[in-house]
Amino acid sequence: MTDKAYALFEEQQQSRGIDLEVIKSRLKALQIETPSWGYGDSGTRFKVFQKEGVPRDPFEKLEDAAQVHKVTGLCPSVAIHIPWDKVEDYGKLRSHAESLNLKIGAINPNMFQEEEYMLGGVTNSDPAIRRKTTDHLLECVDVAKETGSRDLSLWFADGTNYPGQGSIRKRKNWMLEALGEMYRAMTPEMRMLIEYKAFEPAFYHTDIADWGMAYNYAVKLGEQAHVLVDTGHHLPGANVEHIVSYLIDEGRLGGFHFNSYKYADDDLIVGSINPYELFLIFYQILDAAESGEERLVQAVNNIAYMIDQSHNIEMKIPAMIRSVLNVQTQYAKALLIDHKEVAEAQANNDVLGAEDAVRRAFEFDVTPLLHAVREEQGLPLDPMKAYLSGSYGQSILARGKGGASW
Amino acid sequence: MTDKAYALFEEQQQSRGIDLEVIKSRLKALQIETPSWGYGDSGTRFKVFQKEGVPRDPFEKLEDAAQVHKVTGLCPSVAIHIPWDKVEDYGKLRSHAESLNLKIGAINPNMFQEEEYMLGGVTNSDPAIRRKTTDHLLECVDVAKETGSRDLSLWFADGTNYPGQGSIRKRKNWMLEALGEMYRAMTPEMRMLIEYKAFEPAFYHTDIADWGMAYNYAVKLGEQAHVLVDTGHHLPGANVEHIVSYLIDEGRLGGFHFNSYKYADDDLIVGSINPYELFLIFYQILDAAESGEERLVQAVNNIAYMIDQSHNIEMKIPAMIRSVLNVQTQYAKALLIDHKEVAEAQANNDVLGAEDAVRRAFEFDVTPLLHAVREEQGLPLDPMKAYLSGSYGQSILARGKGGASW
Amino acid sequence: MTDKAYALFEEQQQSRGIDLEVIKSRLKALQIETPSWGYGDSGTRFKVFQKEGVPRDPFEKLEDAAQVHKVTGLCPSVAIHIPWDKVEDYGKLRSHAESLNLKIGAINPNMFQEEEYMLGGVTNSDPAIRRKTTDHLLECVDVAKETGSRDLSLWFADGTNYPGQGSIRKRKNWMLEALGEMYRAMTPEMRMLIEYKAFEPAFYHTDIADWGMAYNYAVKLGEQAHVLVDTGHHLPGANVEHIVSYLIDEGRLGGFHFNSYKYADDDLIVGSINPYELFLIFYQILDAAESGEERLVQAVNNIAYMIDQSHNIEMKIPAMIRSVLNVQTQYAKALLIDHKEVAEAQANNDVLGAEDAVRRAFEFDVTPLLHAVREEQGLPLDPMKAYLSGSYGQSILARGKGGASW
Amino acid sequence: MTDKAYALFEEQQQSRGIDLEVIKSRLKALQIETPSWGYGDSGTRFKVFQKEGVPRDPFEKLEDAAQVHKVTGLCPSVAIHIPWDKVEDYGKLRSHAESLNLKIGAINPNMFQEEEYMLGGVTNSDPAIRRKTTDHLLECVDVAKETGSRDLSLWFADGTNYPGQGSIRKRKNWMLEALGEMYRAMTPEMRMLIEYKAFEPAFYHTDIADWGMAYNYAVKLGEQAHVLVDTGHHLPGANVEHIVSYLIDEGRLGGFHFNSYKYADDDLIVGSINPYELFLIFYQILDAAESGEERLVQAVNNIAYMIDQSHNIEMKIPAMIRSVLNVQTQYAKALLIDHKEVAEAQANNDVLGAEDAVRRAFEFDVTPLLHAVREEQGLPLDPMKAYLSGSYGQSILARGKGGASW
Repeated sequence: MTDKAYALFEEQQQSRGIDLEVIKSRLKALQIETPSWGYGDSGTRFKVFQKEGVPRDPFEKLEDAAQVHKVTGLCPSVAIHIPWDKVEDYGKLRSHAESLNLKIGAINPNMFQEEEYMLGGVTNSDPAIRRKTTDHLLECVDVAKETGSRDLSLWFADGTNYPGQGSIRKRKNWMLEALGEMYRAMTPEMRMLIEYKAFEPAFYHTDIADWGMAYNYAVKLGEQAHVLVDTGHHLPGANVEHIVSYLIDEGRLGGFHFNSYKYADDDLIVGSINPYELFLIFYQILDAAESGEERLVQAVNNIAYMIDQSHNIEMKIPAMIRSVLNVQTQYAKALLIDHKEVAEAQANNDVLGAEDAVRRAFEFDVTPLLHAVREEQGLPLDPMKAYLSGSYGQSILARGKGGASW
Repeated sequence: MTDKAYALFEEQQQSRGIDLEVIKSRLKALQIETPSWGYGDSGTRFKVFQKEGVPRDPFEKLEDAAQVHKVTGLCPSVAIHIPWDKVEDYGKLRSHAESLNLKIGAINPNMFQEEEYMLGGVTNSDPAIRRKTTDHLLECVDVAKETGSRDLSLWFADGTNYPGQGSIRKRKNWMLEALGEMYRAMTPEMRMLIEYKAFEPAFYHTDIADWGMAYNYAVKLGEQAHVLVDTGHHLPGANVEHIVSYLIDEGRLGGFHFNSYKYADDDLIVGSINPYELFLIFYQILDAAESGEERLVQAVNNIAYMIDQSHNIEMKIPAMIRSVLNVQTQYAKALLIDHKEVAEAQANNDVLGAEDAVRRAFEFDVTPLLHAVREEQGLPLDPMKAYLSGSYGQSILARGKGGASW
Repeated sequence: MTDKAYALFEEQQQSRGIDLEVIKSRLKALQIETPSWGYGDSGTRFKVFQKEGVPRDPFEKLEDAAQVHKVTGLCPSVAIHIPWDKVEDYGKLRSHAESLNLKIGAINPNMFQEEEYMLGGVTNSDPAIRRKTTDHLLECVDVAKETGSRDLSLWFADGTNYPGQGSIRKRKNWMLEALGEMYRAMTPEMRMLIEYKAFEPAFYHTDIADWGMAYNYAVKLGEQAHVLVDTGHHLPGANVEHIVSYLIDEGRLGGFHFNSYKYADDDLIVGSINPYELFLIFYQILDAAESGEERLVQAVNNIAYMIDQSHNIEMKIPAMIRSVLNVQTQYAKALLIDHKEVAEAQANNDVLGAEDAVRRAFEFDVTPLLHAVREEQGLPLDPMKAYLSGSYGQSILARGKGGASW
Repeated sequence: MTDKAYALFEEQQQSRGIDLEVIKSRLKALQIETPSWGYGDSGTRFKVFQKEGVPRDPFEKLEDAAQVHKVTGLCPSVAIHIPWDKVEDYGKLRSHAESLNLKIGAINPNMFQEEEYMLGGVTNSDPAIRRKTTDHLLECVDVAKETGSRDLSLWFADGTNYPGQGSIRKRKNWMLEALGEMYRAMTPEMRMLIEYKAFEPAFYHTDIADWGMAYNYAVKLGEQAHVLVDTGHHLPGANVEHIVSYLIDEGRLGGFHFNSYKYADDDLIVGSINPYELFLIFYQILDAAESGEERLVQAVNNIAYMIDQSHNIEMKIPAMIRSVLNVQTQYAKALLIDHKEVAEAQANNDVLGAEDAVRRAFEFDVTPLLHAVREEQGLPLDPMKAYLSGSYGQSILARGKGGASW
């Protein structure tokens, strides 16, 4: 059925003037970084659910991540969290990664899990705590040097719970101070990715609450600073694709933390709640890439795609496979948009025509296309099935319960 | 200054036709239940912050709660959570409460903190887990018998994370089954308070998502079943006071879990984010009470006022004192509404006049009134100061860190 | 390509155990009512945009609606709004409809466009205005008798702008009074569909704010009263499919007003913003239909599917064609769900498997299936193209500007 | 009672170390601009309600605005909207204003009420429409020269209704182009205030959707460009006071359009739904002013306070009086914050103490203070009563119905 399906798909797309070879090469170039913490236990404020087979240390996390890459071909790098993934010898971690056909990806400092951080890290009114936190940022620059990582992903859980609790203005400037110190420690190859978030549970204000604040810091810091868009970190109704388009045009979109939400920051599997939004994000990205403008093409090429989710109730490795497949599916659909058709309808103020030209690409079933790509790459046609029918999932049960958790 | 202030306040209110003696007696009758769990450690999904001096067992929780009652005169009862407050001998717990001038209040079953409950308790597709959960509900009826409690407060963390994960319809009926079994086990003096909640972090659907679902269960179960309104459990923009008014008119408002929110279910100190909303809730309650209709007066008298908050970063006992004082303040302000003036403006379609008649009451400073009430009750004029200047806060530090947490 | 495409689709679905003949017959049975007002001019509070060719009276509206049915085969009935569609002789309107192969569908009273309704109609504090509004409701029952309509669709723009402006409780009971009077005037064949809405611009409270209030009225009124779900009338984040499932289980889902939204009640083309939500609504409906329980099958059969949108900037007739095609597409996808597979995964607590079983149906391209259905029905394969390439759109331009508007 | 009340208030505040003379002088300096369009008829998409006595032209609007200033002493300037307030001779309008003791305030271009603007003005894909709209912007600069206005307030209703309808990126750059052309036409004394808005009804994307986009344009344009914060133009939950603080620190807060909302952009009377939010906005402003830093003091002094509301159901002039009194009340309360106390609690990480220090100021009844200020200014103690008991409201009824509307 697969061959017939692809032949038909090809015929269909050719009749639309779509060049599938270009699309296949783009699909082969897609890389999605998975996070080491996505393989460990996680949970709610009430309970961390412990699963059997969860990795017990950063080395085992990499081994699980390697499985995801093995069946999908999409995930050659793994983001790490310090100190969750703190090891004596990062060279050894890096070698372990390489032995698994992986690279260490973005370094993520953790500034929210020690007693001192209760009222903030870099924005704490206590200079000693600010110092400690900034030192941790500098430590992460050092880790990046050892792991050969380009990106430093910064998410701050800093904020206040009550009006008046902290000086919003002072905290704004303390944040800039800390970011500046870290920025100056970076090598010229490194990038700082500044994440924003509308709110955490129990927050009144978040120190970096929206893209505008992250962007403003990035501009002040310099050209190595960019904005990191976590798809779940917005207020209800936010048009994320608009933000994406805006940041690309400014040359400041550093990357994504992908996940999905229904109500608040739910950290669910990307593409599982509103797949059309993910497709529309890729539409904006590809619209910039298709523009032919060098600065925009460059901006698009600099986007780091990363997963950041909590799989509290799902099986860890399959959940990650599902996630990257969902991203690949929506990216493939967006690649089928006929940008000329859209542009013409836009120029003619043909509202329904333009909408249709975008949405129609979403309605294609890209399974034959993805099968063809996987076949050409020597990958299993159905990565989930390949993983589930393999023995790895069984073998790790020997690790028992009580593995790493955040 | 206090006497002068009260004299002026009295003059001012008398000129509006307000009878302060009636208001003072209503203020003296106000009772707000505090939750045992509000005295223990709590936190976020990342970390439970451990504070010094947190109670180590249910008996010490009662002792802390007694301090709140001692300085405010508002909190003669304490809600408990099973199994957080599980003890060998509930008679002993009850006696301890009585020795502290307290009563045991509502019993709250906990159905969200064991491995089995990961995919739901009473709505789990596994009959054995449904049975276990329902048995826990029945156990709580027994506890209520032993503690002499009237109210069983039911909050279910049940829901699904993904479309398709569970059968929404089957879960609806399993819920009714479990509630029915518990209802039938209750004594005629008991009440079942059914709480609803729009969402938990990572949810796609919540089994009891809104007041309509809770209300519908209550109507099906019988006259001892009522709705419990948690002020933080709504979607953005919900008009909580409308729901309150609606439920009173139907005779089904069982009570409140008070707290405050800015974004989602933030569980902050009640009245700290949008105090006018709390005032408007009391306006609806008092509007019903003032109607003179027996069924409405009865409905208002049956409302249980309870605190349900997380004090992750605040000092526990002072946070609770602040909470009940905030409730008392807004209740006092609402008592100053001239319902006749409002009704006349409404009848005349005087939009601005009616709005003004309500809002004006909110703008009065009720401090002199509250001072007078406290003086007449032999309470400290400033309960927070009284607590902070006392020795209790110091004395409990001997408990050390690592007390009870959820 | 079409035949090959269907053959492949059939092979694909057969291998999943899906019986396409059953699905095709269900697709042929799908009926979506379009609203007469959807063919007229509409706009914003600032401006109604006048388009050329807009119908000038109810008869021309029916003619436009007939075009939608002609190319889609989906829309045999047309809802009307009184007094927008008031005519001297409803028998004549009905005959005109029949001559166009249409029926008059739901009757929609209009209670928000006269000076008297500024502060509410059936909930106005002035008894004369309540009387006038209720009389209009009764008039609509009479219209329904003349047009042979089964359904009376009730949307009330009633609410208040400010706290205190009106008595929420009195308005609740005035609403019931008016509904009761209308209900008693209905013939046994008629149904009352009660619509709810979270808010209108500038509202503080809406008299029927959510499904719970609409449902409660319906239960009090009797078995001919049902809830009407407008997909755009919820607070941000509401799980509409949960409400749908709940109402079906209670036997009280009367029907839908379909449209789409991004922020508030945007009244956009259904399926254009979040198509997966529409698919998930149909999943709940089909899950009930598949249950085999007679009461559920009956409940599903009673659902009236209706469009209710504003096409301020779109061409009217094509926008309506787009709308019904979007509904058909998502319905077709939902028909491909393998309910047994879902149920098994649910029973096994296989979270990822159950989610996948639902989502996978969404990812099929149903174009071949819809082509086959249209071919069997003698309809154009591409209804939009058929309409746009026809002469009707051109011919109505002779109507000029300044047609009917709301 | 007034004298006694003030004496007591003074005693109370002095005991807190508050200098009432400073506060009174600040209150006397408060200026709130009212909008000419706030005196005309307005409505919903369904209906503009016509009221008796509404002004028939810009001159009569100024006369009504003069009444608001007369009784409140707060509103010496009036914003105008072009072409709503287009007149042959702006010199004459200016003289009329001066004869009424008023100034013409901000100039507001209207780019949303002509057929051409249906798909956008400065962001329209048609260059002729972009030209026309930009010309209108330039015309407004000319009007400002003639009226002696400093501020040009820019709100764009530009956006798209559907994904794909327009090129988000091109529209971004067209916007900058038009703003740039206008900016260069401004005199050095003028300011451009760029308003943002999350959404309009039926929008998918808004060209200037949030403060970050408006701010970024302002920075690109130059030092005469600032951000205009409309308190109703945010997504649910947005922390407006955070944005305010942020913009002040960047020296880019140009001013406010005040109004209030419950659900979306409801344009209700400022301070009528969540007065604490308004108070917290002033807290951030005063916190900057109190810092003593010259750049912050300067930034605060540059804030233009303006009303922008729709009074669809309220009496126009009283609604405006209510609005400015609400602003004055919350400003007065915020002036009572003891910033030293707050700063100390913040420095000590005393969460409850800091929150209390802010909230306590909100709980004071500032009526005695406002009475004293008004008495010293020779104003009526109760401006609303003064207006309602005067003859002006009666006299304008002679204008009849059918006055100016938007």
